[in-house]
Amino acid sequence: MILIKIGGGKNINWDAICEDLASLVKNGEEVIVVHGSSATRDEIAEKLGIPTKTITSPSGITSVYTDKKALEVLLMVYAGLINKQIVAKMQSYGINAVGLSGVDGRVWEAKRKDAVYSVEKGKTKLISDNLTGKVEKINTELLNLLVKNKYIPVICPPAISFNNEIVNTDNDMASAIMVGALGIKQLIILFEAPGMLRDINDQKSLIKKIKKEELESYMKFAIGRMKKKLLGAQKALALGVKKICWGDGRVERPILNAMKGKGTVIE
Amino acid sequence: MILIKIGGGKNINWDAICEDLASLVKNGEEVIVVHGSSATRDEIAEKLGIPTKTITSPSGITSVYTDKKALEVLLMVYAGLINKQIVAKMQSYGINAVGLSGVDGRVWEAKRKDAVYSVEKGKTKLISDNLTGKVEKINTELLNLLVKNKYIPVICPPAISFNNEIVNTDNDMASAIMVGALGIKQLIILFEAPGMLRDINDQKSLIKKIKKEELESYMKFAIGRMKKKLLGAQKALALGVKKICWGDGRVERPILNAMKGKGTVIE
Repeated sequence: MILIKIGGGKNINWDAICEDLASLVKNGEEVIVVHGSSATRDEIAEKLGIPTKTITSPSGITSVYTDKKALEVLLMVYAGLINKQIVAKMQSYGINAVGLSGVDGRVWEAKRKDAVYSVEKGKTKLISDNLTGKVEKINTELLNLLVKNKYIPVICPPAISFNNEIVNTDNDMASAIMVGALGIKQLIILFEAPGMLRDINDQKSLIKKIKKEELESYMKFAIGRMKKKLLGAQKALALGVKKICWGDGRVERPILNAMKGKGTVIE
Repeated sequence: MILIKIGGGKNINWDAICEDLASLVKNGEEVIVVHGSSATRDEIAEKLGIPTKTITSPSGITSVYTDKKALEVLLMVYAGLINKQIVAKMQSYGINAVGLSGVDGRVWEAKRKDAVYSVEKGKTKLISDNLTGKVEKINTELLNLLVKNKYIPVICPPAISFNNEIVNTDNDMASAIMVGALGIKQLIILFEAPGMLRDINDQKSLIKKIKKEELESYMKFAIGRMKKKLLGAQKALALGVKKICWGDGRVERPILNAMKGKGTVIE
């Protein structure tokens, strides 16, 4: 089984992804897809007059501030608009996709964060209405049921908390928990870059290989979202994944190229 | 197996529905839920500056005009916001709900209507960009897989066309096709009225029983959406359902009351 996590950027080449996916499925590969939708979420949030806000933790990790209104937009865009558009596109390529949010069948069960700290203009603030959590439990029974019956689960946030609240969650960390729970050995992560870059402004500064034990030292190259991806990779490796391939989701053959090691390979 | 179809009004008592559902599931009943979300759809469409438009067919049936933008709102509100909020609420009652749109796994496969006629100010117009279709095929394999493994499928529009387009579809007709395909004998339909009324302005003018063969003659009492419900009932009966219970979704014990025949019973 392979888990393919695809970023939520506007330039992701979904047709190329579907072509690769169709050939993998044809060859009998079992696949689970996780996707984001941050770009469209921000667009719709803006249109609804409730623009996306972010918070930065004391350790420098930036994440979305998800109050009740932002959670509604998340539900609409991730679980509704984008998930179903992806499923329909996959269906058009003969891939029997079934879209699920983490809420459905408790696929992603999370511990809600009671309160988070945010640093604003040098001051630390406590935020208590942030509907966010960390995925800790996976409904592997439901996912295996679908996969063994030739369906491709296409999963997106939000998750459901142990107390049945709908909560936003980090996709990279949720993917790591999934590979651990399902015993998946290969994790493919596609986004809008050729892989991890030494210099974010130089697409040619690609880091080809990262050894598991060196991962920590790469945190210094990581800016913004990339930090979360590194934390997710650390977690996935700790949970038993053998190989993580980061690759460019904008190009032709995005999955097959990433699997061949054309992006950044962590092992 | 029972199919429960719940209307998309604002006053539907979802907590009461979940209580009834939990007791049915506890007693080993297999259930599939279909829901609408017209009220919230209209609200969000208004906020996004693309208010819901309707068209009236030459035979007097009113339906939503679903162009590309309206379809996006439908996806957001039905398959995203409302479907997942319902699933989370059911989960909080111990019901292991899995939300699906008709697109997922081709649960609802529809023949797209190429063009529809609309009557406006006495003139008949041809509308060709209406993304709508009639459900003709059900993925019974996926639904049975979920139900036999103790999941409760919670299904909503849109459907997927035979050509992989996402299309809006009529919930009452889709429910009828489902009961036919799955061999379901009992269909419960909940909405914001005590049942079918002889006089829409008099909540006490409830029609208690309708015989199958009299259904046609009741079309004269039917206004607006109620016409579609009657057409759906006719279809469901033609496809083998034995009993259709229409009941009030706003009250306590909405499902159990409807099953007991407190609303309108068609058989």
